[in-house]
Amino acid sequence: MKKYSVGEKLAQIEFPEDLRNKFSLEELPQISDELRDFIVEVLSDIGNSHFGASLGVVELTVALHYVFNTPDDRIVWDVGHQAYGHKILTGRRDQFHTNRMKDGISGFPKRSESEFDPFGTGHSSTSISATLGMTLADQAQGKQRHHVAVIGDGALTGGMSFEGLNHAGSLDNDMLIILNDNCMSIDPNVGALKEYLTDITVSKTYNKVKDDVWKILGKISKFGPNAQSIASKVSRTIKGSFLKKSNFFESLNFRYFGPVDGHDVVALTQILEDLKEIKGPKILHILTKKGKGYEHSEWGDPTLWHAPGVFNKDTGEIIKVTPKSEEPPKYQDVFGHTIVELAEKNEKIMGITPAMATGCSLNFMMKAMPERTFDVGIAEQHAVTFSAGLAAEGMIPFCNIYSSFMQRAFDQIIHDVAIQNLNVVFCLDRGGLVGADGATHHGTFDLAYMRMIPNMTVCSPMNEEELRNLMYTAQLENKGPFAIRYPRGKGEMINWKTPLKEVKIGSGRKIKNGGELAILSIGPIGNEALKAIEKAEAENMSVALYDLRFVKPLDEVLLHEVFSKFDHVITVEDGCINGGMGSAVLEFMAENGYKANLVRLGVPDKFINQGSQEELWADCGYDANGILNTLYQQISLIRSKNTGRNAL
Amino acid sequence: MKKYSVGEKLAQIEFPEDLRNKFSLEELPQISDELRDFIVEVLSDIGNSHFGASLGVVELTVALHYVFNTPDDRIVWDVGHQAYGHKILTGRRDQFHTNRMKDGISGFPKRSESEFDPFGTGHSSTSISATLGMTLADQAQGKQRHHVAVIGDGALTGGMSFEGLNHAGSLDNDMLIILNDNCMSIDPNVGALKEYLTDITVSKTYNKVKDDVWKILGKISKFGPNAQSIASKVSRTIKGSFLKKSNFFESLNFRYFGPVDGHDVVALTQILEDLKEIKGPKILHILTKKGKGYEHSEWGDPTLWHAPGVFNKDTGEIIKVTPKSEEPPKYQDVFGHTIVELAEKNEKIMGITPAMATGCSLNFMMKAMPERTFDVGIAEQHAVTFSAGLAAEGMIPFCNIYSSFMQRAFDQIIHDVAIQNLNVVFCLDRGGLVGADGATHHGTFDLAYMRMIPNMTVCSPMNEEELRNLMYTAQLENKGPFAIRYPRGKGEMINWKTPLKEVKIGSGRKIKNGGELAILSIGPIGNEALKAIEKAEAENMSVALYDLRFVKPLDEVLLHEVFSKFDHVITVEDGCINGGMGSAVLEFMAENGYKANLVRLGVPDKFINQGSQEELWADCGYDANGILNTLYQQISLIRSKNTGRNAL
Repeated sequence: MKKYSVGEKLAQIEFPEDLRNKFSLEELPQISDELRDFIVEVLSDIGNSHFGASLGVVELTVALHYVFNTPDDRIVWDVGHQAYGHKILTGRRDQFHTNRMKDGISGFPKRSESEFDPFGTGHSSTSISATLGMTLADQAQGKQRHHVAVIGDGALTGGMSFEGLNHAGSLDNDMLIILNDNCMSIDPNVGALKEYLTDITVSKTYNKVKDDVWKILGKISKFGPNAQSIASKVSRTIKGSFLKKSNFFESLNFRYFGPVDGHDVVALTQILEDLKEIKGPKILHILTKKGKGYEHSEWGDPTLWHAPGVFNKDTGEIIKVTPKSEEPPKYQDVFGHTIVELAEKNEKIMGITPAMATGCSLNFMMKAMPERTFDVGIAEQHAVTFSAGLAAEGMIPFCNIYSSFMQRAFDQIIHDVAIQNLNVVFCLDRGGLVGADGATHHGTFDLAYMRMIPNMTVCSPMNEEELRNLMYTAQLENKGPFAIRYPRGKGEMINWKTPLKEVKIGSGRKIKNGGELAILSIGPIGNEALKAIEKAEAENMSVALYDLRFVKPLDEVLLHEVFSKFDHVITVEDGCINGGMGSAVLEFMAENGYKANLVRLGVPDKFINQGSQEELWADCGYDANGILNTLYQQISLIRSKNTGRNAL
Repeated sequence: MKKYSVGEKLAQIEFPEDLRNKFSLEELPQISDELRDFIVEVLSDIGNSHFGASLGVVELTVALHYVFNTPDDRIVWDVGHQAYGHKILTGRRDQFHTNRMKDGISGFPKRSESEFDPFGTGHSSTSISATLGMTLADQAQGKQRHHVAVIGDGALTGGMSFEGLNHAGSLDNDMLIILNDNCMSIDPNVGALKEYLTDITVSKTYNKVKDDVWKILGKISKFGPNAQSIASKVSRTIKGSFLKKSNFFESLNFRYFGPVDGHDVVALTQILEDLKEIKGPKILHILTKKGKGYEHSEWGDPTLWHAPGVFNKDTGEIIKVTPKSEEPPKYQDVFGHTIVELAEKNEKIMGITPAMATGCSLNFMMKAMPERTFDVGIAEQHAVTFSAGLAAEGMIPFCNIYSSFMQRAFDQIIHDVAIQNLNVVFCLDRGGLVGADGATHHGTFDLAYMRMIPNMTVCSPMNEEELRNLMYTAQLENKGPFAIRYPRGKGEMINWKTPLKEVKIGSGRKIKNGGELAILSIGPIGNEALKAIEKAEAENMSVALYDLRFVKPLDEVLLHEVFSKFDHVITVEDGCINGGMGSAVLEFMAENGYKANLVRLGVPDKFINQGSQEELWADCGYDANGILNTLYQQISLIRSKNTGRNAL
């Protein structure tokens, strides 16, 4: 194990009880600094991690574990990529350098990893609902403990946060929601609520009286048993005199406290102590800065420092590995450039994404034509129905959502788009296994859940040229709901900027002829199949490859050709095999009376942890080697049938 | 066509332009009365319709079509079951008696039905997102028109409403949201927002100054071009002096007006005229009464009058068709009684439903053990993650959601329950074709979308006894995520209260032996298969029937038996054939090298309109007759193969 330097105090903390037992309040600032330094040092070295979010909550993390009796008291980190400090303080410091790596610790809280992670996260906006459930379960079982949900202002815009607030506010269960307000999700946060929170923060009235309130809050802890009534007075003062706008939360029956400085660990600790004594649902609004305390991330571009990769911690230089030769672009950038190219010619095109503008490269269009591009905040459901509204009045929205987040809008896809047969183009970014983000983020279900929806066209390009052509096709005349699915990361072509050509809906491509068996693939994983075939042919096997391109509608002409010619067929998809592309092919076979032996390669029926995409494909048996192994087995079968013995 | 009496003025209105051109403001109350009478008369006769909701918005409907230039101006009715008056005024009066019947008009707004329905609805909380999209599309195309979304206080609690408000509030597009506040979804509305709205409504301060505001509002229209600044003054007055709580909407950048009486059609008309002149996003909060204006529904139980069926319009007597003999119970009631029975013995059981307590009969448990039963409002996402929170702390939540609404929580099922392998029991009520509610409400996708999720058990009982046993099994020790799917409506057994028995997970049942072919069914549709087999056997065919019971895990022993014995197999499911149970069987066959001819019966790859369940099963070819026809075909094939000619 590589050694990282650990500060003197941090070295004494294996678990939060060390923090609570060994250190005084006055020592918390130093501990915070050491924790931050450790995070910076490890992450600058290992890269491939979220960065800014965890730096922003270092003081909050220390304060929470100092005040609350974790793990008995429960802390749920919404989304969870800000929980690195939490992991380091809860027994995982020495594993932290394995963050997000295969067989390492997860980049998110995870129940199976630690008792300090009482509820796993990854997707946004789940913490309030989960925490409320946990409070009620504990109440039913007579357990007394504190429950804290930490949620960012970005995650708060997700609709289910509101559903959770609405329910929690109608009960009187004790729970503390900490609103970590840094005005960012990954991209700068958007929406009316953001403006509202900013308003609270910058209002002159607020600044004028902030000090008074601080004084009162500071005094609460001295009053012991009377703390509640005093807090209530403070609360009334805040509400009555200058924070009228806090009514957003108070109208939902939450007591609202704040905003307070989220980087003053001592003050934060005192406030949290006070809030422990206050019953019912309550919100503490803290102001933090993403990337806080590390010069380059604090003052640099926060989107860049969301997940910078490897960097020189002294200079802040982000270290780009220069490829030996020119490399193909990311599919994301191909999408981003192509939508601008298309939108320049077709004024009906609009771009929509829920808080993934940089990740999916819709920011290219946002820059080129801001009035036609919408980042709607963390709000997948709204993004889809909003797109349906645009389409209902004749526009052609390209709605770009990561595959695993599109699950959030499954009903809206069916109910608002497909039933009405509206021309919404769903760009399913990060389809298939995504790598380091792990189980919560893999986009493995999309081909299966999309293909069951009537009226839907479902396709996946094998390379950049195909992506461009499918995007071009999707915006020609009225194509109805149209899903284009492509993976995270690099494509295949250096010269990807090919001329745009229409693709016949439901048409696949024969990539190569072969004599003994055929592989049917969908999407870029077909390139792994191609590599496997090249190796196989070097060993004197003859394998055909067909790129199905459309999971729906299927290319029946192509499939008739395949099943007329071959008795052994392998399907390869970077997605779940239950109900996926291979199953669609089985349905075709059943309907047409074909009896070939079909082997389906894809993601098996279990959740897949993190690792590089290549590692995970290998685990699931559909990287080039895995496919080659299946080719060996199948061809061996075929030849032994033909010759009566195993020919390989 | 049966004749219904039409009021003198209503008879002159085919389309809203008649309303606008032929009548003065003073005549609107009479028109409202006639519209209400017509709705009561037709619905009392045809039954099987929603009732209270449309009566509550009669005046609003008349006012909207009087003020706005429909269909050019856009009105989106959230959920849409309150849109009967709208349909009657927009060219569909003479079809209204076909409401919700096969080949009749839909019970919801529908784009394909009328240009007056600019956006189809059915599920809740979509109107704000859709309307916002429509305003932006019109803006991009230079179209000037008004956009109105009408949303109930129940639908407002759905998270995507909040997502829509958050986005709309960050833009300055003109749109009017009418908050139709009747304190009800189907069951009385719940949550903090409801308390908040009630607070606004009943506050003494509000009542004291309401009249003043009314006067000011009333004057706006006289001021012509200055209307805006005056409205702004009114708005400030309301905000500044007594409606501080309206900040919930104002914090989201909406101008808030109200609350006003939603049954004063003249005043409402004037206010809407005024609001037309006010730019930007705005909310008009109106107070209405569900069932208003018809004595029995206005003062009776609003949940009962949500959809009363046929009734005597003079006496208000709801006419129950007395069955000739004792009838089996609804599956809903079997669920409702059984969960109480189980919860009495297992104190870990909790009941959760998002605003469907009466529909799913969880109200039995709500009455028996209120502290363990949660109606969380229209909030499917929250319902599931809240259940996950309960399960994370050791409870066994039974989360009951109609199948088509469970689509709303697809991501939460995966992300919050299945990845963590939590013991949440999903009770998928109204699985399969539901009948009169039509395309938006059919629960046809659930078997397919549930079976792709790792860790999930997916089953469906063939009758009441099986439902009880599966519920019993689901709460024994830690079973992980467990989905039990059953249909809307009546079961099979008079004596349904059978002793509770554990079912082996993943075990099917052989219902009867047979020699020529086998049917594999899942769920109660197996009883249709049984009827078909009885007829077939009377014609000398020999057919086996297997109730698969579990779609996941599959009963591999049973399937090996079936495919070892039969070359021809039919699968029957009341769900989509793309990716459904039949596909799961095909996957088993492929993995085990079976080559039988498999015919899959189920819902084809299209959206199915409304009709009775029996009518729709017949259309899809899987009622008893449809299955019998498939039996004829298959057995004919089998016999011709065996004898070299067609044997039937």
